[in-house]
Amino acid sequence: MSEFQRLHVGPRLSELSVHNGVVYLAGQVPDDVTEDIKGQTRQVLGMIDRLLAEVDSDKSRLLMVQIFLHDIQDIGAMNEVWDAWIGEVPGHAPPRATVESRLANAQYRIEIVATAAQK
Amino acid sequence: MSEFQRLHVGPRLSELSVHNGVVYLAGQVPDDVTEDIKGQTRQVLGMIDRLLAEVDSDKSRLLMVQIFLHDIQDIGAMNEVWDAWIGEVPGHAPPRATVESRLANAQYRIEIVATAAQK
Amino acid sequence: MSEFQRLHVGPRLSELSVHNGVVYLAGQVPDDVTEDIKGQTRQVLGMIDRLLAEVDSDKSRLLMVQIFLHDIQDIGAMNEVWDAWIGEVPGHAPPRATVESRLANAQYRIEIVATAAQK
Repeated sequence: MSEFQRLHVGPRLSELSVHNGVVYLAGQVPDDVTEDIKGQTRQVLGMIDRLLAEVDSDKSRLLMVQIFLHDIQDIGAMNEVWDAWIGEVPGHAPPRATVESRLANAQYRIEIVATAAQK
Repeated sequence: MSEFQRLHVGPRLSELSVHNGVVYLAGQVPDDVTEDIKGQTRQVLGMIDRLLAEVDSDKSRLLMVQIFLHDIQDIGAMNEVWDAWIGEVPGHAPPRATVESRLANAQYRIEIVATAAQK
Repeated sequence: MSEFQRLHVGPRLSELSVHNGVVYLAGQVPDDVTEDIKGQTRQVLGMIDRLLAEVDSDKSRLLMVQIFLHDIQDIGAMNEVWDAWIGEVPGHAPPRATVESRLANAQYRIEIVATAAQK
């Protein structure tokens, strides 16, 4: 049986799984939905930082990132926050795709699905 | 050349590929589109069960699941069926993301993309 | 540390990452947005061909493909171009999922996210 791990496991979903050195994160959404797109993006990127840190990975090891925006018009403001965040690890910006979708809570402006490698 | 396998291969797509112990399923959609969201969800989860069983995996080994709903308002009803299904393997709920998208057939209420580990 | 590579790395994103024999491509979008869905699909599939060739992979090694269409009604015309492209490697059509989403540029008709195995 190959290496397999889950963290923050609930009855419906877990926040991440790890298999053979690859980390699969659940779609991360903001806790405080009263914030605007920039604030919500900061929250979600912070969650990704914290989850990756728990499994010996970090944002310099992202393999692919899918970003779902409630309104694609938010992409500019989201990118400002993203650029600052990923700019902290120069040369490590990951492949990315950004599309528009309604999300589970109408107040969510953003949801991010990330896959990363362990160190 | 690393281990590589496809199953149910057609001219346009195959239902799954396997590479180095990871199973990638095509987006699964319902056969009977006259059913409501609960029925369609049951159909799709059954398809996932059957496909994973063909390649020495099962729902306790899911790495990540992306759920696309025709109408995000269906999430509650979908979750009822999901919770019963994943509750059969306690402690193994996978990371998940659920967003709204129109699907290939206007009568599809749900499409699920799943990635899993072999045993 | 496992094998890790990125190509076409910018300050915001890179076009691909490679880890343990798996290639993750960024969402590919057309350069010439004046073309119709068929032309845009051809452009995007050509980009995928060129990127995979840079990392010792090709379209016969696709593990999973997610297609986002600006308008799901374009699926028939997109499939004509897809079928011709993937038909060049008979027996190697990958798992696929196609959904509708607004994309980063209102003139993009299609964005494709692909994962592939190296040879």
